[in-house]
Amino acid sequence: MTETRTVIEYVLDRLHDIGVTDIFGVPGDFAFPINDAIVAHPKINWIGCCNELNAAYAADGYARVRGVGAVNTTYGVGELSAISAIAGSYAENVPVVHLTGMPNRATQDGRAIVHHTLGNGEFELFRTMADTVVAASAILTPSNAVSETERLIGAALYHRRPVYLAIPADVVDQPVLATGQPVTLPVSNPASLSAAADAIVAALEGASSGVVLPGLVVDRLGLRDAARGFIEAANLPFATMFADKSVLDESHPNFIGMYDGRLMDEAAREYVEGSDVVISLGTLPSDFNTGAFTAKLDPARTIDIEIHRTTIGATVYPDVEMGDLLSELAGRVYRTRALPQVPLPALGPVTGAGPDPITADTLYPRWAGFLREDDLLVVDTGTSSMGLAFATLPRGARFHNQTLWGAIGWATPAALGAAVAARKRRLVLVTGEGSHQLTAQEIGQFARQGLAPVIFVLNNNGYLIERLLCKDPDIAYNDVAQWNYSELPHALGCQDWYTPRVSTLAELDEALEVAGAGDRACYIEVVTGTYESPPLPKLLHDSVKTLYRS
Amino acid sequence: MTETRTVIEYVLDRLHDIGVTDIFGVPGDFAFPINDAIVAHPKINWIGCCNELNAAYAADGYARVRGVGAVNTTYGVGELSAISAIAGSYAENVPVVHLTGMPNRATQDGRAIVHHTLGNGEFELFRTMADTVVAASAILTPSNAVSETERLIGAALYHRRPVYLAIPADVVDQPVLATGQPVTLPVSNPASLSAAADAIVAALEGASSGVVLPGLVVDRLGLRDAARGFIEAANLPFATMFADKSVLDESHPNFIGMYDGRLMDEAAREYVEGSDVVISLGTLPSDFNTGAFTAKLDPARTIDIEIHRTTIGATVYPDVEMGDLLSELAGRVYRTRALPQVPLPALGPVTGAGPDPITADTLYPRWAGFLREDDLLVVDTGTSSMGLAFATLPRGARFHNQTLWGAIGWATPAALGAAVAARKRRLVLVTGEGSHQLTAQEIGQFARQGLAPVIFVLNNNGYLIERLLCKDPDIAYNDVAQWNYSELPHALGCQDWYTPRVSTLAELDEALEVAGAGDRACYIEVVTGTYESPPLPKLLHDSVKTLYRS
Repeated sequence: MTETRTVIEYVLDRLHDIGVTDIFGVPGDFAFPINDAIVAHPKINWIGCCNELNAAYAADGYARVRGVGAVNTTYGVGELSAISAIAGSYAENVPVVHLTGMPNRATQDGRAIVHHTLGNGEFELFRTMADTVVAASAILTPSNAVSETERLIGAALYHRRPVYLAIPADVVDQPVLATGQPVTLPVSNPASLSAAADAIVAALEGASSGVVLPGLVVDRLGLRDAARGFIEAANLPFATMFADKSVLDESHPNFIGMYDGRLMDEAAREYVEGSDVVISLGTLPSDFNTGAFTAKLDPARTIDIEIHRTTIGATVYPDVEMGDLLSELAGRVYRTRALPQVPLPALGPVTGAGPDPITADTLYPRWAGFLREDDLLVVDTGTSSMGLAFATLPRGARFHNQTLWGAIGWATPAALGAAVAARKRRLVLVTGEGSHQLTAQEIGQFARQGLAPVIFVLNNNGYLIERLLCKDPDIAYNDVAQWNYSELPHALGCQDWYTPRVSTLAELDEALEVAGAGDRACYIEVVTGTYESPPLPKLLHDSVKTLYRS
Repeated sequence: MTETRTVIEYVLDRLHDIGVTDIFGVPGDFAFPINDAIVAHPKINWIGCCNELNAAYAADGYARVRGVGAVNTTYGVGELSAISAIAGSYAENVPVVHLTGMPNRATQDGRAIVHHTLGNGEFELFRTMADTVVAASAILTPSNAVSETERLIGAALYHRRPVYLAIPADVVDQPVLATGQPVTLPVSNPASLSAAADAIVAALEGASSGVVLPGLVVDRLGLRDAARGFIEAANLPFATMFADKSVLDESHPNFIGMYDGRLMDEAAREYVEGSDVVISLGTLPSDFNTGAFTAKLDPARTIDIEIHRTTIGATVYPDVEMGDLLSELAGRVYRTRALPQVPLPALGPVTGAGPDPITADTLYPRWAGFLREDDLLVVDTGTSSMGLAFATLPRGARFHNQTLWGAIGWATPAALGAAVAARKRRLVLVTGEGSHQLTAQEIGQFARQGLAPVIFVLNNNGYLIERLLCKDPDIAYNDVAQWNYSELPHALGCQDWYTPRVSTLAELDEALEVAGAGDRACYIEVVTGTYESPPLPKLLHDSVKTLYRS
């Protein structure tokens, strides 16, 4: 069959095939043909954002919900403004396709000095910069468009990482000149798979206790059902590390809490570290996943099931796909043990009322109580994420945070992306005001898109997590500009939003009630004292030596 | 003499030596020791910004006024968010020192998985990415701190480009372990200098007409006086290309207007292209400097005096410093010709009044009339810069625009930086509302810094320059969120600002009068019809074939 589509039609159709129905971006002249094609595509929406960093964060948030996302920027100025967000998607295993428009081939061939370049006639410099933070990159021609697009989609899905796809303006609307087929994602090596499964089954049979640590890649790979199937078949308890929170339902009877080394939730730590077998599903022993490196998992008792390989003790089983292994295990393991009795952590009951000020002790239980089944909860890095991480979420609710990359400001546009990805789910954004200031202008896009999020801006007078980690908490750089947050949504074009500023428990309770009714979009400024912190940040404050290896 | 300072004390003292008294940034834990030292430095101020892109744009604006600027970010998330602005500084010959805080050496040596990394134990990836867009980079140790700092400062000043200087957190407060001296910037090769000067003097003596095109590097190199000295000694007229506007005073009697190829100002073009000798001082024949490549300079009649070399016809004179050559020439040339009569372009008289809507024809002359001596005018890329570029500026007024890099959004934070750099000068920011949305949150910093800018936000319902350059002007991606701009400054914490929304000439005239009184900061939303454009963008619309080589 002859392929009759243009380069961009092929690219966009393929993105749609893998789940993209919305592309975030900022237009620009070298990208006009791509921008035009997105607007013209019958099944894909153009979602204009205020700037490229925000657009790429939105694509990241979208991809966390949909499985894949896409962002479109123009050459140089646009792509480089987005590159930090792309790096974040790389760190966090989020497959985002970054489409960039380039100058015409004639301009490039002639080394013309044109805008959005360094003025040196070089046109592949920015692609080279991108290469550090993507799984694969390509510059399309009519000849390679099909094969390169397929290679990139394959790489994005295989690695669950972003890819970079640039198209010169004059190439975009050319017919493709070669056909091709989607890259087939590999299945496991049967012998390796079988051997890994044998070893795990044997390890479980010989163990008097075991636990599973499902990692965020389980969600990225679409393996939540497979992981749950294995856990239920073996009747194993599971705990999650910070980055992996809610990757499996926290309402599941086998959930025993958050494992954060010695800093939090001692019952979960004791059970995990005392288990004969710990099965990690792609977790990462990072600083904030391990309670500032206080987690002590015995390598001899830990089985690492990674995306494409499994390690048991000193033995590596290469070419074992996580999904294949989980399915294989689900069919072979059986319930040998009763579930252990590990008390789930709780943030405590809702206390206080009336004119009392809002404290950490009174705030986090209220937020926990506000959450509902199937909520999409996007929380920015900081004290608020470190507080909410220890709320047990209702069935179907999902907690999204950027625990490894940890770019403050990510959450606001990521929440926009998540809301666009699942317009029927309630989107709850929780962000500190310092983080919010980086990307706050994107609030206007919620209204433009007809979305009704519930947004909490925690105003504690600056960067609280930094106050707790630096030498002098009151030093000037931890202060931020004092905004009038309740005025911001209207200034950004949001009509009829509910935008109270609450500083007492009575005001907070009223705001939560209004927000809970779900009639309209909410943007609630929650004012607390400068040093109102949930437990974890205070414990990190006491652990800076292990955290920073200083 | 033994050096007793710490690494960061040495770096900051040296930055202060070359003119930095303010460092823009966003704090972060790996940068805390640097952040601390900046706050503690007796002669340097910490200027916190809302995000890193904005901070780097602010440093760029500051460097355009002061000659050099500095921005401080944290590792990974921070530095990459700033990298597009750094690339802009590179493209536009702006020396900005990018200080980045890195994780401890123990963390790096141990390949620990810590936040703000890709999770792969690699710590020099981002420095490699920066290398593409800086003149030089270094990661400091106590041993190399002095020599590397001097090498970087030398590179920044020699190339007038940004440099990247990263310091692991544990290195920052260590004593330096070696002494060193500032890099001496080179003087010209005497023979080459003399030969170039001879050739230019001879060319001028044999010419019946001549013209100078001073480029923006004249300003970056601090050679405005030297260039003016040469021009006056030879009594040559001068014209400027777009990027170079106001590099020499436009009130100077020798100024004959803007040279923009065949698109604008025919009298200047005719004189420049008809001159027997055209002396370019570091100009760049870019798309927007040449009226979409319609400028036709005869290479045989053009003398290119670049920063470090001069080219006359087929002869290259290497190792000739622009400053040395201008001084040499000023002492050798003499007035052989009278100034030509070239009519200066004008935007036309102020017309209209009362309830009439604001049109391009009535707006730009009013803006031109609003400008005063010594104003710092920062204008974002778009129709507004293309209109104001053809206003003749009062004595001492300086027009700053990002003509080559052309990142929309640059102007708002760059204006903050420029205002901080010269607190006694009036700062006038003109930005389209589409551009403004990228970086608008930085408005709050003006108030925090006690600055009283005059800000015009041109609201023409979207990206007008894009409407004029793309296929379908009304296509959805050219629309932006509809903000209530007059509410924005107060929402961002600016008290008592004058923030009118003007859509008639009477309202505009009143706003200009209030702003002219200079009593308080002003943020004026100027509403025009969607397609109200000054001449140049319309002409570019007609020139897309040469502009894009399509």
